[in-house]
Amino acid sequence: MSEQENKNTSVNEQVDQLAAKIEEVVLGPDGNPLSKKALKKLEKEREKEKKKQERPALEAAERAAREANEVDYAKDNYGMAKMNMSQEQTNTKWTEIKDLNAAMAGETVYIQARVQTSRPVSAKMCFLVLREGTATAQALLLTNKDSISKQMVKFANSIPSESIVSIVATVTQPGEPIKSCTVGDAELHVTKLFVTSEVKTMLPFSLEDASRSETDYEKDPTLNRVNLDTRLNNRVIDLRTITNNAIFKIQAAVCQLFREFLEKQSFTEIHSPKIIGAASEGGANVFRVTYFKDSAFLAQSPQLYKQACIAADFGKVYEIAPVFRAEDSNTHRHLTEYIGLDLECVFREHYHEVMYMIGDMFIYIFKNLEERWAHELEIVRKQYPSEKIKFDEKPLRLEYKDAVALLRKHGEEIGDYDDFSTPQEKLLGKLVKQEYDTDFYMLDKFPLGVRPFYTMPDPENPMYSNSYDFFLRGEEIMSGAQRVHNADFLRERIVSMGIDPDSLKDYIKAFEYGCPPHAGGGVGLERVVMFYLGVGNIRRVSLFPRDPKRLEP
Amino acid sequence: MSEQENKNTSVNEQVDQLAAKIEEVVLGPDGNPLSKKALKKLEKEREKEKKKQERPALEAAERAAREANEVDYAKDNYGMAKMNMSQEQTNTKWTEIKDLNAAMAGETVYIQARVQTSRPVSAKMCFLVLREGTATAQALLLTNKDSISKQMVKFANSIPSESIVSIVATVTQPGEPIKSCTVGDAELHVTKLFVTSEVKTMLPFSLEDASRSETDYEKDPTLNRVNLDTRLNNRVIDLRTITNNAIFKIQAAVCQLFREFLEKQSFTEIHSPKIIGAASEGGANVFRVTYFKDSAFLAQSPQLYKQACIAADFGKVYEIAPVFRAEDSNTHRHLTEYIGLDLECVFREHYHEVMYMIGDMFIYIFKNLEERWAHELEIVRKQYPSEKIKFDEKPLRLEYKDAVALLRKHGEEIGDYDDFSTPQEKLLGKLVKQEYDTDFYMLDKFPLGVRPFYTMPDPENPMYSNSYDFFLRGEEIMSGAQRVHNADFLRERIVSMGIDPDSLKDYIKAFEYGCPPHAGGGVGLERVVMFYLGVGNIRRVSLFPRDPKRLEP
Repeated sequence: MSEQENKNTSVNEQVDQLAAKIEEVVLGPDGNPLSKKALKKLEKEREKEKKKQERPALEAAERAAREANEVDYAKDNYGMAKMNMSQEQTNTKWTEIKDLNAAMAGETVYIQARVQTSRPVSAKMCFLVLREGTATAQALLLTNKDSISKQMVKFANSIPSESIVSIVATVTQPGEPIKSCTVGDAELHVTKLFVTSEVKTMLPFSLEDASRSETDYEKDPTLNRVNLDTRLNNRVIDLRTITNNAIFKIQAAVCQLFREFLEKQSFTEIHSPKIIGAASEGGANVFRVTYFKDSAFLAQSPQLYKQACIAADFGKVYEIAPVFRAEDSNTHRHLTEYIGLDLECVFREHYHEVMYMIGDMFIYIFKNLEERWAHELEIVRKQYPSEKIKFDEKPLRLEYKDAVALLRKHGEEIGDYDDFSTPQEKLLGKLVKQEYDTDFYMLDKFPLGVRPFYTMPDPENPMYSNSYDFFLRGEEIMSGAQRVHNADFLRERIVSMGIDPDSLKDYIKAFEYGCPPHAGGGVGLERVVMFYLGVGNIRRVSLFPRDPKRLEP
Repeated sequence: MSEQENKNTSVNEQVDQLAAKIEEVVLGPDGNPLSKKALKKLEKEREKEKKKQERPALEAAERAAREANEVDYAKDNYGMAKMNMSQEQTNTKWTEIKDLNAAMAGETVYIQARVQTSRPVSAKMCFLVLREGTATAQALLLTNKDSISKQMVKFANSIPSESIVSIVATVTQPGEPIKSCTVGDAELHVTKLFVTSEVKTMLPFSLEDASRSETDYEKDPTLNRVNLDTRLNNRVIDLRTITNNAIFKIQAAVCQLFREFLEKQSFTEIHSPKIIGAASEGGANVFRVTYFKDSAFLAQSPQLYKQACIAADFGKVYEIAPVFRAEDSNTHRHLTEYIGLDLECVFREHYHEVMYMIGDMFIYIFKNLEERWAHELEIVRKQYPSEKIKFDEKPLRLEYKDAVALLRKHGEEIGDYDDFSTPQEKLLGKLVKQEYDTDFYMLDKFPLGVRPFYTMPDPENPMYSNSYDFFLRGEEIMSGAQRVHNADFLRERIVSMGIDPDSLKDYIKAFEYGCPPHAGGGVGLERVVMFYLGVGNIRRVSLFPRDPKRLEP
């Protein structure tokens, strides 16, 4: 509009200059008044000259008026929206981009979405890619005589990427599928376009760069890379990529499926305290909290509390909650705060009742992820290519001693009762994959010496224990065991491991009043998601990751 | 068994004494040997005497032998089980007490449960009440000739309350319903009985005492009371009452229903960090954590992070997670650690889209609780009598100014823009109940001055705001609002409230790159459960409550 005003001003200026010229020429070049004849002649000439002079100005004025008119005919159809303070509520039905499809052709839809990119084709036409969550669609503005002006197209082109817009559009079916968007069989012909929230700052990186796969970089090594630290420092922008939106839908899905399975089995969800009075489980790697005039600690696991719930007759319990580890590990798979999926379950005869149930649970999760979250998995696999994981209907169970034998067969040096190193775990994963064609298995009967004090020894060989880890793509995702449910024996185990039983007296007390045999386990949510999706670093699957060096944002 | 040994010992002693007597009488009273005749006569007498003497001893020995025999015929059917180390696994199908019913009469069932009480009727008969979670059933031991001995009945009677047993029993239908148990139409005739986990310590209080209602105390004021502190100090025992088992099933149900409703609406579950680098929201009442060589804080709410997820295009998010408040409040409704049910949601036109959706969510929770958790509600209401809550299909919405007018009409002195005190909130609840016959309502349009900086002002009157609280039985259970989604306006609001905008720069930054309008709210899980069940103290609905004075167990 300011440009139009400039044009108008310039026409007025030209008219004024002409009028001044006319007054000037009434006097002859010598400064004396001209004769009537000469004056008439001159007037005619001036008339002619004036018209000649005025023509471009008038034409410009007319053009300006016409253009101003064009602005007018579309001006109610676009612009900056007032800040939404809930000024009004209509009965408009709004559509989400993910729900668009060819069957809606001809329908008028109302959409609120983000402008991912805008691309001008000419002064009369422009394409927008609109994004909402994990869905993108192509929108088109094309001038017409009554509702879409060039000014509106220009305005559309000028919207900064990542701004939020509200549009009204007609759904059309494109001639051929739109490959660059997740909605391929529908296109939006925009009739109204308002900016709801404008981006006023330069983005730290483009969403396009943040969404590239390794394959993209192989094809064109000059493309910008966005390194992990830059992403995490600007996590709100980074999380907007459809890949990241999809990753966190999958993370939520893992929790949802975990609960679905356990609730069908009559598990009760519990919420155990995270601020605890005594540093349990030894006291190492625990964060200290100032608690009024006292000192407290952050719980390293809900272990003792979920067992207390078993002693309190809850039967089957689970918890999804943050777990805190003050461990100074700066690796691809350690966080100082992560989400634990914990469960504990009474059994009647044998801890395998629980172990196999947990195995079935993982298979339920894996299967349902592939079926019900196929859209999200497809999106993630475009940026981070990975194969579907392989597993058997009844998950493979290996004994620790057999795993040791397998490793030795392939040249590893390892003692009977040694814990595996991470490289050994990964090698074992490869060997198991070769031999059994599965990415998922249960390793049972760990040496007693490498497990915590509350682990039940094996009844046949006290060097082993009734404990298990679950592995996905060669890395541990869950650790569990039958627990010692007998107070006297628990005290004996605690003392034998050199721990002061007084420091665990509340824990031991829970079992003195009778407790059924039970087993359980703890799953690291981020690890499951990370290994399932093969994204290589645990920080990619934590919303706002915390490690020894990162506390923000 | 030790008693039988005693009996055998005493028979042997009698026999020995008799033998000594015989030797003694071979000599006459004068010390000289007797004549043959006298001797014969004497021997006959002695023989007679001996038999007479021996009779009771023999009888006793026979009886003992008989009883020892009786032990034998039942001895494999009862006793102390070895500690379960998963020695063996059979294909036994185990039954849960809650699943017992009259239709199973005649069936043999295997059950693992707790002995709540045992009551001897005679030496031949004994009743047990078995408990598993929120279900109790009556079990019976009655001697027979081949499998149940008096010794077995005696053993059953001697099992300490709260021990865990494994039994085999035949289900029978009792003559009349068993009123003292939750399973009224089935009784267990025990055929095998083993103690899996024995209670060896005196219980701090009986479960019977811990389960009494106020009505019980009105009827008999001499009954023992178990005060709240004693309960909480021995929480594992306290949690075992069927009332407490039911309370925590209802707590879990509230979470389950919250999720069910939101997942149907395409909400995504998030997990935001609890350890944060900067004390957000002003910095008061925040717990400090030692973070390696640095200092950090525990999050007081996921507010800033759930909004960041909106700015990151998650659209609709929820979180169930612990919330930490270092507030030195020692009241019936404050905890230092509680579970927040938080949600945040994009809207298109008006925050009432979100507010009414949250209203519908609560109604979904209330309705489903009454339908699907009727058993648990019935149990809780026996100990803590309360009426079903009343509510309308479309929840009542009141404006703050109208609530002020209602309070004034009933004599309260309150300024237009003052916050309500707790007594005023409760009074308002009563007045609303009288006038609108509902226990649940939404109070909308709070004064801007009593809400946090991120609250959107009312577009028509800047003294009010687009914010709301939800009330249940006159007490607040949720607080929410439309949030300021415009970075410039947010900065303005922060400055106008005297907060340094630099301290919130990460938060403000999230909105600088464009953010859709959104609203949300935070629910205190324990408060919902507490007011819904009318249990009077928030500690009763927290598994292991934390307050300024309690960090244990």
